[in-house]
Amino acid sequence: MDNINVSRHISGKFNEELEAVRNQVLNMGGLVEQQLRDALHAIEKHDQELAQQVLERDYKINALEVQIDEACVQIIAKRQPAASDLRLIISIFKTIADLERIGDEIERIAKVALESFNNDHQQFLISLENLGQQVLSMLHGVLDAFARMDLDAAYDVHQMDAQADRQYEAVTRQLMTYMMEDPRGIPKVMNVLWSARSLERIGDRCQNIAEYIIFFVKGKDVRHVSPESMERTVRGKRD
Amino acid sequence: MDNINVSRHISGKFNEELEAVRNQVLNMGGLVEQQLRDALHAIEKHDQELAQQVLERDYKINALEVQIDEACVQIIAKRQPAASDLRLIISIFKTIADLERIGDEIERIAKVALESFNNDHQQFLISLENLGQQVLSMLHGVLDAFARMDLDAAYDVHQMDAQADRQYEAVTRQLMTYMMEDPRGIPKVMNVLWSARSLERIGDRCQNIAEYIIFFVKGKDVRHVSPESMERTVRGKRD
Repeated sequence: MDNINVSRHISGKFNEELEAVRNQVLNMGGLVEQQLRDALHAIEKHDQELAQQVLERDYKINALEVQIDEACVQIIAKRQPAASDLRLIISIFKTIADLERIGDEIERIAKVALESFNNDHQQFLISLENLGQQVLSMLHGVLDAFARMDLDAAYDVHQMDAQADRQYEAVTRQLMTYMMEDPRGIPKVMNVLWSARSLERIGDRCQNIAEYIIFFVKGKDVRHVSPESMERTVRGKRD
Repeated sequence: MDNINVSRHISGKFNEELEAVRNQVLNMGGLVEQQLRDALHAIEKHDQELAQQVLERDYKINALEVQIDEACVQIIAKRQPAASDLRLIISIFKTIADLERIGDEIERIAKVALESFNNDHQQFLISLENLGQQVLSMLHGVLDAFARMDLDAAYDVHQMDAQADRQYEAVTRQLMTYMMEDPRGIPKVMNVLWSARSLERIGDRCQNIAEYIIFFVKGKDVRHVSPESMERTVRGKRD
């Protein structure tokens, strides 16, 4: 079951439909990644215009989710997929739901970035840089893993979340120190803290998508399993 | 399309399977509602034991999600559902994903409740009461709407989220005032603030489930549409 060829169908038309929907997911993923990249860049370079563009582009992600969702329902109704085809459709359903929610978190980050330029808490935003880069790597990695349905790459992303969580804890501690030192700045720092939380959640959602890839390739639901059990599944040893 | 009878199948067996999976969702929903009720009660009554029980019970919600997910995949593979049956399965897929995430948020709240009893910030936890009751009403309402696939009840829950958002804003402002008044208390108050955020997110997820019910009954995806368009869909007027 390890080597699943996603294009091996008797019905050429079915093949085309599956390919089309996979490509749409990759487009949606590319757009989400660009949004995160731009939101982080807007923070770093104090680029208010870019932050505004990120906000204006979110509707495209929502529209893609609805489109892909409909396409998947059509495929199930028309093609009655089974086995790995059905698992692919299910994985797509779940992946796009997480991508859309990642889009929402990015929107929240961009809003904070926009507000910050009217204030003087640029210094706090800098705390987000490492966490931002880690989460961007996770998103890039999981989209790449999805494109190739690459089990090992998906597992690597899954493992990266621990580092993101540690960075998030560090940012939180640092920002709380700022708040205690200068209580008047609390509302501003809180905004940055919400952005950190959004980044941490994006990491969690990348981890979810990694789990859907593992489900597709291995046919096994690895949500809520122990790290050991997940490793056994990925490495192909018996559970 | 308004009056969908969920039990009207040629295949009695198919009927039974759909009913079984619907009942499982209701069980899962009942468990999640009990968890939220207990977590809020634990906060109100300083009941550490109850908070601990909430934490220990979360795995049951996760297990139910995986089971129902598998049952849905089986039904699609075996029964090749179309039209409203397929919409029901899709709605169930999405509903249980949101229920599981609601379970995670409740877990976060229970953890904070547990920590609080070792500290002296019981006073801050009281700020959560109104928001907690509002969100509990939303959860109860949306599960009830799901059980009867009741369009109007789902729409009512959808509308209730605005009130939850306002209560959340009020709690946030109040807690920020506490922090500014006593900066040494910031880490404690932050924990309460995270719980408030968790409650607000539970409200959002109830709103999602309301949208899936509307999708099932009306066959129309109402995510990301304007309030006017949603009302037209629910009231059955032409878009």
